[in-house]
Amino acid sequence: MGSMSDPRLAEYLQFLRFPSISTDPERKGDVAACAAWLERKLTGMGLETRVVSTAGHPIVLAKNAHQPGRRTVMIYGHYDVQPVDPVELWTSPPFEPRIENDVVFARGAADNKGQIFAHVLGLEETLKEKGELPVNLVLLIEGEEEVGSAHLEEFLLAHREDLRCDVIAISDTGMIAKGYPTFTYGLRGIGALELKVTGPGSDLHSGIYGGAVANPATAVARLVASLHDENGHVAVPGFYDDVAPLQDWERAAWARLPFGDEDLLKVTGSRELFGEAGFTSLERTWARPTAEVNGIGGGFQGVGTKTVLPQKAFAKLTFRLVPNQQPDDVMEKVKAHLRTKCPPGVQLEISGSHAGEPYFTDPQSADGQAAQRALQRAFPGKDLALIREGGSIPIVNTFKRVLGAETLLLGLALPDCRAHAPDENFPLANFFGGIGLNRALLEELAG
Amino acid sequence: MGSMSDPRLAEYLQFLRFPSISTDPERKGDVAACAAWLERKLTGMGLETRVVSTAGHPIVLAKNAHQPGRRTVMIYGHYDVQPVDPVELWTSPPFEPRIENDVVFARGAADNKGQIFAHVLGLEETLKEKGELPVNLVLLIEGEEEVGSAHLEEFLLAHREDLRCDVIAISDTGMIAKGYPTFTYGLRGIGALELKVTGPGSDLHSGIYGGAVANPATAVARLVASLHDENGHVAVPGFYDDVAPLQDWERAAWARLPFGDEDLLKVTGSRELFGEAGFTSLERTWARPTAEVNGIGGGFQGVGTKTVLPQKAFAKLTFRLVPNQQPDDVMEKVKAHLRTKCPPGVQLEISGSHAGEPYFTDPQSADGQAAQRALQRAFPGKDLALIREGGSIPIVNTFKRVLGAETLLLGLALPDCRAHAPDENFPLANFFGGIGLNRALLEELAG
Repeated sequence: MGSMSDPRLAEYLQFLRFPSISTDPERKGDVAACAAWLERKLTGMGLETRVVSTAGHPIVLAKNAHQPGRRTVMIYGHYDVQPVDPVELWTSPPFEPRIENDVVFARGAADNKGQIFAHVLGLEETLKEKGELPVNLVLLIEGEEEVGSAHLEEFLLAHREDLRCDVIAISDTGMIAKGYPTFTYGLRGIGALELKVTGPGSDLHSGIYGGAVANPATAVARLVASLHDENGHVAVPGFYDDVAPLQDWERAAWARLPFGDEDLLKVTGSRELFGEAGFTSLERTWARPTAEVNGIGGGFQGVGTKTVLPQKAFAKLTFRLVPNQQPDDVMEKVKAHLRTKCPPGVQLEISGSHAGEPYFTDPQSADGQAAQRALQRAFPGKDLALIREGGSIPIVNTFKRVLGAETLLLGLALPDCRAHAPDENFPLANFFGGIGLNRALLEELAG
Repeated sequence: MGSMSDPRLAEYLQFLRFPSISTDPERKGDVAACAAWLERKLTGMGLETRVVSTAGHPIVLAKNAHQPGRRTVMIYGHYDVQPVDPVELWTSPPFEPRIENDVVFARGAADNKGQIFAHVLGLEETLKEKGELPVNLVLLIEGEEEVGSAHLEEFLLAHREDLRCDVIAISDTGMIAKGYPTFTYGLRGIGALELKVTGPGSDLHSGIYGGAVANPATAVARLVASLHDENGHVAVPGFYDDVAPLQDWERAAWARLPFGDEDLLKVTGSRELFGEAGFTSLERTWARPTAEVNGIGGGFQGVGTKTVLPQKAFAKLTFRLVPNQQPDDVMEKVKAHLRTKCPPGVQLEISGSHAGEPYFTDPQSADGQAAQRALQRAFPGKDLALIREGGSIPIVNTFKRVLGAETLLLGLALPDCRAHAPDENFPLANFFGGIGLNRALLEELAG
């Protein structure tokens, strides 16, 4: 493992200091500065690098000199990060990386700056040692993954020839447990919407008017409550229509993994678990769709009592989807359900945001096997874990559709990495292991 | 009506400039400064005035020289005000009073500074003109009405002899319509609680963990949704057990009042009304109990999407109660209901805050009739309206219990006064009419 004075580590921390929050319009300049920093780094390594503007945040694209007869491998990652609220729950400021017990704490430490930068440094090592890479490389690092990769598909379509590749590798998933090389063959998709309920023209005195005017906060609560039954099943009609059933081999393999309910309780800091009846926790998060409230709000938010009937209320919802659900189809069903369930006396407005399909790839393909060998070389000593994941990387489906290539998911984050949450973190062991993974992966994929 | 240069108006505006928000610990000094200002005013009028400290905010108490054989009248009001959020919806700053078209806009303009200060100026006029008042006066202006008059009962018990009176008058209710003298013979009570639901140890990635860990925002929504059925009835078992049925004469009288659903739509800025099936809007707000969400919150509150499963969520609830419901009894039923309805996988914490009983007094009593004569003298030309109100003034019951006196409710606020909301307002006509009301009231009550 590299020491604290390792220049590779210093560069990683520099990368983490950019507050590249893609969803926040006020951070547009920071996102752009982060892209420019990456461009300088990659150009310095000898790669032909461009920052390509989009209608949103820029894409960083780098290639070596392609040679006929070699396989072409795309490595994809993202340099944008999630917001940091509630910022007061961070032990140290999210964009001032802190290292404690060989673990880096910062927004983006794991998701995805730490993982993509390990690949960058792996490429740098190979280039320094061998003067060239064993494959034709396409390195694509985008700035809109956390907002649904809004402009990536347009970019892929416009540069389809330039981006032609045989296979794609992404490290933006997890290792099932510390030290266990992990190959992810499935991901959940996502559909997001925000519902806003408005009632009276302003906040009202809840004593004077309460009873005669519908309460928008009550309406939002009733809409949210209508999403589930008491057994944790999603209660939207038709929601499960296209869900691919779990295979017996998966259920058996997952039951043997070194991650159980005790680990989940610990990692999430929960006192008890709850989910859809009839499934284990791993099955619930990896292979079953969900409806989640990401934010709800309305009325008085301060300390004490304020007897108002609020003028409006909102809920931000995301739905995790599994093969073979289609986001557009499911989201239409959800919207129809919400419109049906909206109580009288209020106005309901539903705005959609991003959506992404679920993903499933064959772990027994030649490239799948090559990737698994590379993982075992980079993280020796433990059984390889074959898993799915609950998160969404919508662009893997876009890659398949536009570029015709399968994606290999070689995750490096640990279950307690706290991605999207305060105190996000990434162990130095995984960061330096990721550098080795990149080197082994290109060799294995070169064939 | 007084002109803009009227010193009485200037003093009223001075009173409004104190941000005396009793629920906000940071405003403690402002609340105290407001009490001190009142003390100076009342002392200057020749009343024997004291500011009495409590464990909360101080009480201002003023008396004239009591004489045997005269009736003793207490006038009660409050100098504390509600919070101002959402402050961005105010047309002008809430503590910088603005006069437009003979209407004063400011927090407290109507509730209660405008109304209690009209009484103060009525007393001043009588004292200036006659050298004395026709009754023994006890003027009590407290600073904790908006937080449930937390320390008033203790004060009444400790000064019971000193506060002995025959009847109490309060102007902290409304006029049914502009110019209509209005006598209020009933008020709703209130019970308040805050529920807090906690789940995981921190916000979680809703993709990675969603499905296996209960969502506290979903749980809060389910709890709130459990409070009503689809017809707007409160669904807490036993909630309606002790509700006094509406009398036929009330339903008939209210149906004739110059305030209908069109007025309610206009005053509240609503597009449609909704409430408990089987009752008119006035019946719903004046004589039926309710369950209202005053605030709900949890998870991401910012712009855009953040795919978190929130660590916690809350709802602030108030219940308006009617004769003969007992707040403690009803709130126990509500808490039991919420505990029963709390979904698995989360922890529910319920904290109570203030509660107040509903009120009902006989409009045909001698003092009730005297008050109605005074109202008709101060606001001539329109039929007197006999109404109840939906708001709560919990201390009227405390007065009855501790001092043995009935309270006369002589409201001066208009339906569109926006009490507790942005752009709270009070017409100058009502302010100056209130000065006249005080003079007529003391004469009528003197008998």
